[in-house]
Amino acid sequence: MQATIITIGDEILIGQIVDTNSAWMARELNKIGVHVYEILSISDEREHILSAFAKAKQQSDIVLITGGLGPTKDDITKKTICEFFNDELELNQEVLDHVIMLFKEYVKAPMVDMNKDQALVPKKAQVLMNAYGTAPGMWIQEDETIFVSMPGVPFEMKSLMTDRVLPRIKEVGNLNFIHHRTILTAGQGESTIATRIEEWENNLPSHIKLAYLPSLGTVRLRLSSRGTDKGFILKTVDQQIKALYALINDVIIGESNDESLVHSVVQLLKEKHKTVATAESCTGGKIASLITEIPGASQVFKGSTVTYATQSKVDILSIDPVVIEKYSVVSEQVAVQMAAQVRKKFKSDFAIATTGNAGPTQGDSDAPVGTVYIGIATPLKVYGLHFMMGNHRERVVQKSINKALELLQKELIEL
Amino acid sequence: MQATIITIGDEILIGQIVDTNSAWMARELNKIGVHVYEILSISDEREHILSAFAKAKQQSDIVLITGGLGPTKDDITKKTICEFFNDELELNQEVLDHVIMLFKEYVKAPMVDMNKDQALVPKKAQVLMNAYGTAPGMWIQEDETIFVSMPGVPFEMKSLMTDRVLPRIKEVGNLNFIHHRTILTAGQGESTIATRIEEWENNLPSHIKLAYLPSLGTVRLRLSSRGTDKGFILKTVDQQIKALYALINDVIIGESNDESLVHSVVQLLKEKHKTVATAESCTGGKIASLITEIPGASQVFKGSTVTYATQSKVDILSIDPVVIEKYSVVSEQVAVQMAAQVRKKFKSDFAIATTGNAGPTQGDSDAPVGTVYIGIATPLKVYGLHFMMGNHRERVVQKSINKALELLQKELIEL
Repeated sequence: MQATIITIGDEILIGQIVDTNSAWMARELNKIGVHVYEILSISDEREHILSAFAKAKQQSDIVLITGGLGPTKDDITKKTICEFFNDELELNQEVLDHVIMLFKEYVKAPMVDMNKDQALVPKKAQVLMNAYGTAPGMWIQEDETIFVSMPGVPFEMKSLMTDRVLPRIKEVGNLNFIHHRTILTAGQGESTIATRIEEWENNLPSHIKLAYLPSLGTVRLRLSSRGTDKGFILKTVDQQIKALYALINDVIIGESNDESLVHSVVQLLKEKHKTVATAESCTGGKIASLITEIPGASQVFKGSTVTYATQSKVDILSIDPVVIEKYSVVSEQVAVQMAAQVRKKFKSDFAIATTGNAGPTQGDSDAPVGTVYIGIATPLKVYGLHFMMGNHRERVVQKSINKALELLQKELIEL
Repeated sequence: MQATIITIGDEILIGQIVDTNSAWMARELNKIGVHVYEILSISDEREHILSAFAKAKQQSDIVLITGGLGPTKDDITKKTICEFFNDELELNQEVLDHVIMLFKEYVKAPMVDMNKDQALVPKKAQVLMNAYGTAPGMWIQEDETIFVSMPGVPFEMKSLMTDRVLPRIKEVGNLNFIHHRTILTAGQGESTIATRIEEWENNLPSHIKLAYLPSLGTVRLRLSSRGTDKGFILKTVDQQIKALYALINDVIIGESNDESLVHSVVQLLKEKHKTVATAESCTGGKIASLITEIPGASQVFKGSTVTYATQSKVDILSIDPVVIEKYSVVSEQVAVQMAAQVRKKFKSDFAIATTGNAGPTQGDSDAPVGTVYIGIATPLKVYGLHFMMGNHRERVVQKSINKALELLQKELIEL
């Protein structure tokens, strides 16, 4: 089963928002065995929507559409769906009752006519009730292709997908099994690794696809396969993974099946019943923010301090001002003290500290742009490491986050 | 001038990464007057790439391509470009010298053949040197369409765009002037606003397009126009904005030209020479992380504490345990103390505090999921406000961030 995802809305084409919906949808579709062929973002224009629908219909079994379902005039998806399917709108009483209920419970303002119009749906559509908003999801099948239209508001789309769309696709679909396994490596570049595994790669069976995903400081190797015989796919991918381990065991630091480094760290903390706290300077709270995005993080995350100003490191973390004076605020000694202090103050088992200069300007220390010290405190030891992370602000911050999480992951694995 | 953006790479189609490149490119293109017609993500497959190129060529003056330029076998963009343009690869000495230099300076491993192959470029392409990586940008014109291929690594793409591609487009392009103005409103829903401005909207001149962008707690109204006569566009959009102010002055809280709320807050702090600190519980460091993403934030941001565990609020922020005991950790009293304490500890002018229950489970307090208290401390006062943010974790966190920044913005405007 092959899908096209279409996002409708000028705000994406002028770069006012980043389309995070499509990646989420693609991941969920993949999990149930739907192959995403293409992701397309188009404007709120009739002709453009019609031509995108026509092309998507040719190339896909299912077309998932988000956006353009609001009550205002700029939202034309519903009208254009009617045109495409040669259909007309009719009032759906269940949706109308739901809209009335939402206004009564959650909205202080009175309903106006255009709110009632949210209950108009194409006659050919089956309505998918949207618990969190006034625009219902719509499911229309014509010839061999299913079209599903959903609002673009992320949490409305997500609950519609989870509760209504994905279960239905599983019912109707003739689904393949899709399988990915991703090996995480560190210490060598992608070309070095590719040279080492060249013969293995050349002899991969044709149903298994290899991708190299280099990121700052790490290279992920992803093996993907899809087909009807789940047992065969699982077995053959596993054989290839084992062969890969034998070839480059020295650079493999773990496996991360669609899981990010931060997921792996939180999972390890949970498994080992340990907690962590972070003392962030150049990473600005991003490590805390990544950790707390994971539901259940409160079990393992004690908290964080973001001490951007030098004086805050003294005031909040009780870093010794003599040490700052002697070694500078961007130094191994300060990173070590930050890690030790935040661990103590938050009473956590582990702690991560970052201090560095991400640029673009030099800041409170003489350290050149790109200099970063990471401090790690464990129940047994505390240490700081020095890194040069390049000269690009975004890259320095991202690399520091990855490196800090990687160091913590290593400590947790070795525990 | 009309553009299509094509992103090549399976990792987007399986949802392993979010495509942030396209939004950035779209915004930069818009700024210089290039209209983005479509954004397309496709897989690393020859036929798919060829058909996407053919379609993009028909519909655009410029096609911007990212991804698939790595040295490994799964990267086929360069080979497929050759096929599309009936071209062949040749060695570019300048790129080879650059690759050799990068390996000497930054990479510890020896170069292998596939690294040298990064210097192979299509004969018809003009090379755009990539200061930060081994894959050069490529500029190929055929008939009336320009194709530009760039690596997908965000900071490499960004510096290529900024230093090479955008200046060149400005040179060759017959560029329109594109203008957006966005009015920020709060307090009424989009349908209520739409009803109030219906007559004005119906009478908008045809060269001005209105979009409603509802977000959690706010509605942005964006007027867009493009054309050759810059003066005419600026003047007529300004007239319509003035008319809009006259109609809904009571709900307009500001203007945010492509700027987010956090940009506006940092800008206001800079203008008024004030500083802020944050004490975050349910927002998990996200407010700090958003503020520190803005270059120059260190001038106005003192730091943050993320106190996820209740005990941390006592240990780190010196919140009175008796107050927590009496009112619960999710309470107005605790939000007020957090704001006051973090302001004092970080010696900032302003402070934001958040404490709440974002769900999915109840956590350390009896407060129902969705309950959030926001504390605001200013040089003159400190107060806490109670909100019910709904029952969806992501929404609760996002709404809390917006509301907290909005409250701070209001204090700063009134200062």
